[in-house]
Amino acid sequence: MTNREPALIGVLGGMGPSATIDFLTKLRAATPAARDQDHVPLIVHCVPQIPDRVAAILNGGDAPFAPLLAAVRVLERAGVMAIVMPCNSAHHWHRRLSQEAKVPILHIAHAVRDQLRQAGTPAGRVALMATRGTVAARLYDDAFDAGIAELLLPGEGAQNAIDRAIADVKAGRMVQARASAAEAAGILLDEQRADRLLLGCTELPIALEGSGRQGSCIDATLALARACVKLSLGFTTEGLTP
Amino acid sequence: MTNREPALIGVLGGMGPSATIDFLTKLRAATPAARDQDHVPLIVHCVPQIPDRVAAILNGGDAPFAPLLAAVRVLERAGVMAIVMPCNSAHHWHRRLSQEAKVPILHIAHAVRDQLRQAGTPAGRVALMATRGTVAARLYDDAFDAGIAELLLPGEGAQNAIDRAIADVKAGRMVQARASAAEAAGILLDEQRADRLLLGCTELPIALEGSGRQGSCIDATLALARACVKLSLGFTTEGLTP
Repeated sequence: MTNREPALIGVLGGMGPSATIDFLTKLRAATPAARDQDHVPLIVHCVPQIPDRVAAILNGGDAPFAPLLAAVRVLERAGVMAIVMPCNSAHHWHRRLSQEAKVPILHIAHAVRDQLRQAGTPAGRVALMATRGTVAARLYDDAFDAGIAELLLPGEGAQNAIDRAIADVKAGRMVQARASAAEAAGILLDEQRADRLLLGCTELPIALEGSGRQGSCIDATLALARACVKLSLGFTTEGLTP
Repeated sequence: MTNREPALIGVLGGMGPSATIDFLTKLRAATPAARDQDHVPLIVHCVPQIPDRVAAILNGGDAPFAPLLAAVRVLERAGVMAIVMPCNSAHHWHRRLSQEAKVPILHIAHAVRDQLRQAGTPAGRVALMATRGTVAARLYDDAFDAGIAELLLPGEGAQNAIDRAIADVKAGRMVQARASAAEAAGILLDEQRADRLLLGCTELPIALEGSGRQGSCIDATLALARACVKLSLGFTTEGLTP
């Protein structure tokens, strides 16, 4: 712990806007603050026009890369010391963005991994709830090892329900989003015998809020928010190390 | 209504962080959107280290001006076409910032005024719930005329309760914030005989959420969010005209 000013962090968000707001809410709640000036200073690039990440990953496309890199440049020019992306699927481009960026970009899967490691005991069978893009990109497979958790991928029925939940949150259809997310959680916990659910898409914590399943959930958005607070306040470099 | 892409808007926020999140939530809800790409693109300067606005106004200080102007510059460099400030007290510097800025800065009191005008009938006796800084700066007095509303300033008891509610939201003490805001609303409506409450501090909609008083409230944050959506989507220039 240091006494320096909190460091300016860049948020490459807008994918979607609700997920960015959820991230900012969790970041604020995770910050020890009694007045405005104690909070983490942020520049938030919330530009929802970045092309569809999942479609690009599944079709071998690259349309999101240039706009993501342009956003990195905007954040760099604004003077941020690090960047976070509250969108799991966008991490498909994390390595290339990091190679181009002048400042480090935290990795959401590494933030989750580091928090699970700190728990000390393996998390057991963890079902990945994410877009098909994140599943295909193997974001969490590559971050986890046996000492962290056994990663379980959803069957087709659960994945369909996950896809619907994510699309419904993006369209603001919250009743439907909650029903689909609850259906997916039920299949994964009861049929696929998962011990825990990894919410590896930033729309899913919104869809599962108040579902009664939250005790089983590992919230990647929250892990990233906590890593971001610690980094800004100078406590750690969690989520930064490969 | 045009078919062009939504325009990039700069949000000069962080005063405080909760108020910025409330603004972003209302902006998203006010946007007609079925997918990420339909939403308003934003660059959010959320730097809570900007010095205390109210203290500066009351003491004749100018400490917030230079950091506010620096934030305007960051947003301009990011390519925004207009700027909004979800902080009423910061509008004390609106005129000077507008003189320096290369892009227009919406005025929150003008956004409220324009929406009240559209209602067609005068709003009656409207009690201003705001910081002592906003009251001293006469932000709403100068925007309103008799055709819009009769502006009523809180007595010392109500103002004290308003001050406590605002400070409590900033410190995350929500139970106390709600009690103080409800106390102030009660004095203004029942003793000072206001017809409506103008929430002229961006912390107050948060403190009055779920209070049962919302039907009596004119929410300046919401008025600014709606003006921002219309401006980005090309419908109007509400809040921009002096």
